[in-house]
Amino acid sequence: MALTGVLRPGHVQIRVLDLDEGVHHYRDIMGLEETGRDAEGRVYLRGWDERDHHSIVLRQADRAGLDFFGFKVADEHTLNRLEAEVRDWGLATQRIPAGDLLETGERVRFEIPSGHQIELYAHKTFKGSPLGQKDPAPYSSRMDNGIAPMRFDHALLYGPNVDKVLDLFTKVLGFHLAEYVTLPDSDVKGALWLACSNKAHDIAFVIHPEPGKLHHVSFYMESIDRVFRAADIMAAHNVKVDIGPTRHGITRGGTIYAWDPSGNRFETFSGGNTTYPDLPPIAWTWEGLGEGGGLDVAHRKMHETFLTVVT
Amino acid sequence: MALTGVLRPGHVQIRVLDLDEGVHHYRDIMGLEETGRDAEGRVYLRGWDERDHHSIVLRQADRAGLDFFGFKVADEHTLNRLEAEVRDWGLATQRIPAGDLLETGERVRFEIPSGHQIELYAHKTFKGSPLGQKDPAPYSSRMDNGIAPMRFDHALLYGPNVDKVLDLFTKVLGFHLAEYVTLPDSDVKGALWLACSNKAHDIAFVIHPEPGKLHHVSFYMESIDRVFRAADIMAAHNVKVDIGPTRHGITRGGTIYAWDPSGNRFETFSGGNTTYPDLPPIAWTWEGLGEGGGLDVAHRKMHETFLTVVT
Amino acid sequence: MALTGVLRPGHVQIRVLDLDEGVHHYRDIMGLEETGRDAEGRVYLRGWDERDHHSIVLRQADRAGLDFFGFKVADEHTLNRLEAEVRDWGLATQRIPAGDLLETGERVRFEIPSGHQIELYAHKTFKGSPLGQKDPAPYSSRMDNGIAPMRFDHALLYGPNVDKVLDLFTKVLGFHLAEYVTLPDSDVKGALWLACSNKAHDIAFVIHPEPGKLHHVSFYMESIDRVFRAADIMAAHNVKVDIGPTRHGITRGGTIYAWDPSGNRFETFSGGNTTYPDLPPIAWTWEGLGEGGGLDVAHRKMHETFLTVVT
Amino acid sequence: MALTGVLRPGHVQIRVLDLDEGVHHYRDIMGLEETGRDAEGRVYLRGWDERDHHSIVLRQADRAGLDFFGFKVADEHTLNRLEAEVRDWGLATQRIPAGDLLETGERVRFEIPSGHQIELYAHKTFKGSPLGQKDPAPYSSRMDNGIAPMRFDHALLYGPNVDKVLDLFTKVLGFHLAEYVTLPDSDVKGALWLACSNKAHDIAFVIHPEPGKLHHVSFYMESIDRVFRAADIMAAHNVKVDIGPTRHGITRGGTIYAWDPSGNRFETFSGGNTTYPDLPPIAWTWEGLGEGGGLDVAHRKMHETFLTVVT
Repeated sequence: MALTGVLRPGHVQIRVLDLDEGVHHYRDIMGLEETGRDAEGRVYLRGWDERDHHSIVLRQADRAGLDFFGFKVADEHTLNRLEAEVRDWGLATQRIPAGDLLETGERVRFEIPSGHQIELYAHKTFKGSPLGQKDPAPYSSRMDNGIAPMRFDHALLYGPNVDKVLDLFTKVLGFHLAEYVTLPDSDVKGALWLACSNKAHDIAFVIHPEPGKLHHVSFYMESIDRVFRAADIMAAHNVKVDIGPTRHGITRGGTIYAWDPSGNRFETFSGGNTTYPDLPPIAWTWEGLGEGGGLDVAHRKMHETFLTVVT
Repeated sequence: MALTGVLRPGHVQIRVLDLDEGVHHYRDIMGLEETGRDAEGRVYLRGWDERDHHSIVLRQADRAGLDFFGFKVADEHTLNRLEAEVRDWGLATQRIPAGDLLETGERVRFEIPSGHQIELYAHKTFKGSPLGQKDPAPYSSRMDNGIAPMRFDHALLYGPNVDKVLDLFTKVLGFHLAEYVTLPDSDVKGALWLACSNKAHDIAFVIHPEPGKLHHVSFYMESIDRVFRAADIMAAHNVKVDIGPTRHGITRGGTIYAWDPSGNRFETFSGGNTTYPDLPPIAWTWEGLGEGGGLDVAHRKMHETFLTVVT
Repeated sequence: MALTGVLRPGHVQIRVLDLDEGVHHYRDIMGLEETGRDAEGRVYLRGWDERDHHSIVLRQADRAGLDFFGFKVADEHTLNRLEAEVRDWGLATQRIPAGDLLETGERVRFEIPSGHQIELYAHKTFKGSPLGQKDPAPYSSRMDNGIAPMRFDHALLYGPNVDKVLDLFTKVLGFHLAEYVTLPDSDVKGALWLACSNKAHDIAFVIHPEPGKLHHVSFYMESIDRVFRAADIMAAHNVKVDIGPTRHGITRGGTIYAWDPSGNRFETFSGGNTTYPDLPPIAWTWEGLGEGGGLDVAHRKMHETFLTVVT
Repeated sequence: MALTGVLRPGHVQIRVLDLDEGVHHYRDIMGLEETGRDAEGRVYLRGWDERDHHSIVLRQADRAGLDFFGFKVADEHTLNRLEAEVRDWGLATQRIPAGDLLETGERVRFEIPSGHQIELYAHKTFKGSPLGQKDPAPYSSRMDNGIAPMRFDHALLYGPNVDKVLDLFTKVLGFHLAEYVTLPDSDVKGALWLACSNKAHDIAFVIHPEPGKLHHVSFYMESIDRVFRAADIMAAHNVKVDIGPTRHGITRGGTIYAWDPSGNRFETFSGGNTTYPDLPPIAWTWEGLGEGGGLDVAHRKMHETFLTVVT
């Protein structure tokens, strides 16, 4: 296969301070489809264009943030191979039994040097989209249910040891570096946008002293028009916006950053560069990230919250 | 690498009946950038978001159509491996020396059972985009130069032995089948949309008695708005439109089919499904292709030209 | 007032062959809001951005078509003045009592030389929009209910004596001619786009031997994106499309022409020129209407249905 | 005429600190067409969809701001009538001779109670648009020349005596009040959006202690997509953005506020409500203007610059 190994972001488990409030936000305002609840009380959701059983899992907890981020890999063989390679690289791995997450096979979990729990798995039940799989329908009202993102697209994570994370993701997990930011007056890469596909990115990291932090979980929208519509719906429901609507210079995507009721940041994102592993990554200086519009094309400035507010 | 083997559609060589007329069309109306001419008189062009030296090569000839379609592969090792595997599969391969196409390394060429010349190559000079590679600019007037597609995206080819083509592309070249159409009252796949990435497709085939035919070469636009703008510019230059603006049910992309002055069909295309090799392909019946809107969501009918006009 | 006299298209009464089918089309697929039914069984509807009680009235009848087209005028004084001027111009007028249409004041009706029943009225109950009138909400799910046009925008009517209609609308009713088409090899204006505002048009006429015919009733969409979404929803409900999505050269609006279940054509329309009475009208030749893209920018041809299919 | 009296915003004369810098901004970055220069050194410009000779006049001066705002009226008779009515209302009027502004007839000027110079005129040379007036072209590259607004749309002015301004514009000049904001804990209208057409507004006022101030001059864009593109071009040229891209709750228009090199704020604006004189104005409270999203739907807050930075 040309697209093999790690295929795509498959699931994230998000901690919310109040489950009902979290479900209201992600199901009723975002408009994700609730596809299940498990015995632990976790709630499973997905975007209208997703085919697997779920991508977003909400867990009630005392503090907000991300429990883990799971990638779908091509098959069991790949799962076993990558587990061995991750161990060879020096990380302990753990097997989470099939069924721990609804409709999901055995998962290989490991803590990466930034302090995040990353998972790989080879199976999640195919559920199909509301448009259907044979002579699919041209429209479903789910496409306009709340903000109605197409899919969970990526997450941006904050933590230390970004250099080691880069080594792990590119040397072991098969990602390519799509764009990066160097620290002020330095060649050190302080922020990474990594892709296992030709999307603009599938996961991203920013260097940060505290490990295991979540900057945002991102949801994909069809167009700038839909990003604007998302802002209207956020406003109608008093969802607090951080940045945007604007364009990121990095990825060239349209964006709004906003917060869920627990303080987890999420993004509604559209467009974005097409990337390939043979193309050199796009390089941003620290000034480029701020005044160069890497973060915010319209305002060309660093927003303080970008560097400081994480969960 | 998660994205490995065959990476992307890299170049097509299109035959035009009059070179000046062809250059006027692709450079001045489409707005592609001319990046070179070679000793044989061929003209090299590319879209504003492409990073390699060229993607479209125009050659003056007595009849229109496609000389060959080349894919960029990950590296020399991959080129050699795929050459061997293509031979093992039963096709003769030929090496075209480096430099035959400007700024392009050695190419491995073979005729596939549909009668098309397919090429693989590992090197084409990286030229960068007008936005630049370090702290890239947010805008270039090249983005509004004529129709201004972002890139050559894919081609749809017509010929016999589509079943063998499917076998070759999926078993040897690492593509996955994203969508297909079965022939009337049959399980036989008569049309294939194949991807080596998670794009909606990178190449497509429709069964046809005559070998080696071109249905269209496709150019990627950012949005439906830009597809509409393309129609305005086509009209301003008397470019003859075949179908659209409309949406294809297949791929869900926005589309216009139109003809260049030599009668080669081209497409301005936007959006399109995100595909993965582990997801079952979307299945269209013959009725789905026509009345089901697979070809034309708005008009839900087969257009006769779709099946009969090729070069 | 700068905007005075005849203010806007206020209502049309459309004949449908089966009321339930008609209501299903206009309320459930188009997504208009049903605001009332009267003792005669007529059903009243409106778009989400309309503030008056209704704009579309459906009446079950043996044949499709338009019963009448009513304009809201500024006040009672204007109604009386215009009634007198219409009589002076040579037409008989009739008063329809208040309450004949729900929530609507007395109407002055007259048959214009093209054979259409035109009405003027000064009162229709203000009902407000779902966004509210004080600190209005930024979003309502009504904005995504079905095709969800903002408003009834205009109608195109077919009939004889277009020259007299022009005289009446410009000399008596205060409209300006925004654009027109001359007949082949002639200076005779065979088609008129007339505005009582600075919209692209509020009513239009095409010369036709049979009097009193309806070409289409038009609904306004926010954007080209929304016109494309309308096509998706039409397809999902087997609504038969006539022309589009495309742009009209005339008005520069985005458009789809399609048919309701009774065979009445309707349009989903976006954009459109801004017009003023002091600017010369845009002049189209007969060739401009067809090959010049006046009707269909993308295809630059006359569609036979445009001239022949009316109700 | 239904659209009569004052027809539209016709011209504004903007003071810039450096003419070359101002011309670079408005002609090369904004992409307005330069249509003339006069003996005083003033530069005349217009948007691509404007038909009159110019709408923006730049004058070099020691301080930024607005010299005057002129409205096109229907004809000489209207000019004379309105002059008399403005005098009757209590203002002194002055006649500026024809030719003082290039291609412009005699102007009637008066200072309104907010301290702004308002002008009326009946003649400005019709120059036509780049698309032409007979069988117009579907596209001109002027539509993509820089930010490329369609037209000068309106201005927002700051000054005292907003109540008197409302009386003058509605009772004498024929405008209707489309939307307004009341001051905190008060019924006093502190901000007015006024229209002489069915546009969202043609001129607006916010109460302010200092007379004769300019908040912004606004330019009309076709779509939200084009507003986003404007942000990209602003960023490419280091144009400083104040607010946006976002939507105003007031008018529902898409917007970016930014500054020209002299510190005059301008807006790129899209969409916006359709208004009519018979519909009650939309009422915003002071909280609605800020937290209610009247100014900024996405961020639902008052921006300090909105109230304090004027020229």
